[in-house]
Amino acid sequence: MLIIGESINSTIPEVGKAINSRDESFIAELAQQQVAAGAGMLDVNVAVADGDEVENLLWAIRTVQSAVEVPLVLDTGDPDALKAGLEAHRGRPIINSITGEERKLAALLPLAVEHNCGVILLCLDDHGIPKTPEGRCEIAKSLVDKATRAGVATEDLYVDPLILTVGADSKAARVALDTLRLIHDTLPGVHTSGGVTNVSFGMPQRSLLNRTFLAMTMALGMDTFLVNVRDKGVMATICAANALLGNDPYCSEYLEAYHAGKLKVR
Amino acid sequence: MLIIGESINSTIPEVGKAINSRDESFIAELAQQQVAAGAGMLDVNVAVADGDEVENLLWAIRTVQSAVEVPLVLDTGDPDALKAGLEAHRGRPIINSITGEERKLAALLPLAVEHNCGVILLCLDDHGIPKTPEGRCEIAKSLVDKATRAGVATEDLYVDPLILTVGADSKAARVALDTLRLIHDTLPGVHTSGGVTNVSFGMPQRSLLNRTFLAMTMALGMDTFLVNVRDKGVMATICAANALLGNDPYCSEYLEAYHAGKLKVR
Repeated sequence: MLIIGESINSTIPEVGKAINSRDESFIAELAQQQVAAGAGMLDVNVAVADGDEVENLLWAIRTVQSAVEVPLVLDTGDPDALKAGLEAHRGRPIINSITGEERKLAALLPLAVEHNCGVILLCLDDHGIPKTPEGRCEIAKSLVDKATRAGVATEDLYVDPLILTVGADSKAARVALDTLRLIHDTLPGVHTSGGVTNVSFGMPQRSLLNRTFLAMTMALGMDTFLVNVRDKGVMATICAANALLGNDPYCSEYLEAYHAGKLKVR
Repeated sequence: MLIIGESINSTIPEVGKAINSRDESFIAELAQQQVAAGAGMLDVNVAVADGDEVENLLWAIRTVQSAVEVPLVLDTGDPDALKAGLEAHRGRPIINSITGEERKLAALLPLAVEHNCGVILLCLDDHGIPKTPEGRCEIAKSLVDKATRAGVATEDLYVDPLILTVGADSKAARVALDTLRLIHDTLPGVHTSGGVTNVSFGMPQRSLLNRTFLAMTMALGMDTFLVNVRDKGVMATICAANALLGNDPYCSEYLEAYHAGKLKVR
């Protein structure tokens, strides 16, 4: 299982401001807090900050990698920024993300091969996001096929079923869950990954929806989570779900988390 | 989906005491509270109260059915008590439960047929509870086969995969989840049912484990839940899970529950 901290994202106003003003201590602290909370990797997204994305990404990578040891998830659709980022990154990053859009695929997939890193594959293409699980799974199959033929190992692929908010479409979460099931049935060996927090965008009691959905995706075998690791409820749910899935012999991690006060959630 | 209130159970000390002392108002209030909290049926178990189970069950059925309109789940393994209970019950109850134990099956199944009611089928037999999902599913298949051949409609069957505590065996919940998946794959049309609360017996932060497991079982298609409906966290999780499973058009029930203050959970 891989837990990716989602918080270094320029779409969050105070994070965007910190990138714009080159506030190293803010970004370093945000990185340290997330690793302390249990993140195994950190997503870094500078896409909507001011100025040049290449420079912003290089600054962010340097700042985060000076503060913490975990590898990063380079969250950009800009081939130049990605290329520069992959060269600057120490260790083995994950690219977030490659889609079935032909132009992006042609530009980004060779970088994944060259740098021998993990890749998040999104179930969308030039025709947009399919409404059905079958449509999404078709794109996943095509992307996995192209990526493995290009030389990326199956175990380095993270297929994202696309988690959209139930606030806009009350079938959105169901389609994501059914897509997950199909992907696991038809593409054994790939990881599945998702931005769980999206499911509740614009809804009240977001944490309740996020935690409930997190448990559901884990029951369906999703193993990579882009989440707000500083949300104690989210981390407690992951801990409980691991105990329930038989991934925690003698529930010892669960009991340890309990005794450390980490399961006292609201 | 069917939510069964679990609380009228003689193994709970104050409930056992109320049955022994024929405290009608205690039992009536417990029934009313559970229906108000959203129970669609109420489980009634008098098995460990003092005295005669037939008399205790008849008293409990009369008391509960004087207080609330919902039908009951008659939770007894005593054929005499069950027979008397089925005759006294107004409306259409569910029998909880029939197992693959030959002697019990022979005594109880004809009563289900005669009274044309629902039946919870437990995945255990004369050899005990199988350790594997495959073993449990074999018993389920045999029980469903026997029940339908005897004349019980498929849609009146509630297969229970047996939910045991992770406190005793850290694979227990996983085996129940894998059994659920197998049952849905091999026995289309039957309901699946379970006592979710059992999963956390003897563990700390039970509500966290119960809610997380509830979400997992719902993701795997379980549709009948024996739970503590007075636990707001449990009911909020069911509400959130329904919204996420696409069972709640426009999330209107979720939003209504939110505005009624029902989703403010600890």
